[in-house]
Amino acid sequence: MTTDDRFGTAPDAAALERGTTLAPRFDAAALVAAVATHADTGEVLMLAWMNAEALARTIDTRQAHYWSRSRAELWHKGATSGQVQDVVELRIDCDQDAVWLKVRPRGDGGACHVGFRSCFYRRIEGAGGTARLVEDAA
Amino acid sequence: MTTDDRFGTAPDAAALERGTTLAPRFDAAALVAAVATHADTGEVLMLAWMNAEALARTIDTRQAHYWSRSRAELWHKGATSGQVQDVVELRIDCDQDAVWLKVRPRGDGGACHVGFRSCFYRRIEGAGGTARLVEDAA
Repeated sequence: MTTDDRFGTAPDAAALERGTTLAPRFDAAALVAAVATHADTGEVLMLAWMNAEALARTIDTRQAHYWSRSRAELWHKGATSGQVQDVVELRIDCDQDAVWLKVRPRGDGGACHVGFRSCFYRRIEGAGGTARLVEDAA
Repeated sequence: MTTDDRFGTAPDAAALERGTTLAPRFDAAALVAAVATHADTGEVLMLAWMNAEALARTIDTRQAHYWSRSRAELWHKGATSGQVQDVVELRIDCDQDAVWLKVRPRGDGGACHVGFRSCFYRRIEGAGGTARLVEDAA
């Protein structure tokens, strides 16, 4: 776990868990996990990653920025798709290695490149060797 | 990204994104991200990690199992705290590197060791150098 000098530090568990200082703890790849839910429906839209720059830009612009692991670049969500995510609320978890964004997507209101509103459009059903994915109605 | 022989494989993007085969893609640490929301309120309770064993056990037992990165061990959530998470629904995202669990916590109904129901009990407010954390009422 590493910190970034764009943010503060937490000297102990009490400061990390109960303090008012934003002191995100980035993983070995310098990322925190970020879950985006729809501010109105509550559904989980997507799970993505932020490096320090993406988190700082999200805080400052109130629009979601992520780090694209596949493209290895800063990703202003919606810059090409129109699915810009206006951030209604931003939260961080107890040990400051994950953030939760409540967002309102612009454009067609979706978040997933496959065409569903949420990236989580398939349920895992069954168990063991017979587990299968069942897709929602489009 | 790696696969695990407990699960299937997806030969191409179409199979990965639209297929019925569960073919999770684990990261360099052999983990997928897992977000748990409360099945009744929709709030995000926690964000954690699963290796192949944790995911397989979650599917088979319908109780949430994670991989504890800090303890480096399989973690049957609630085994010591009583906050066992009964899984109401389990979903996977488009590129199969993240899962979403809708759960009902047993015990005191919480998920966070700090004492809040959700681990995300602090909002990030302000911007730039003045960003600060504001805790929910307990």
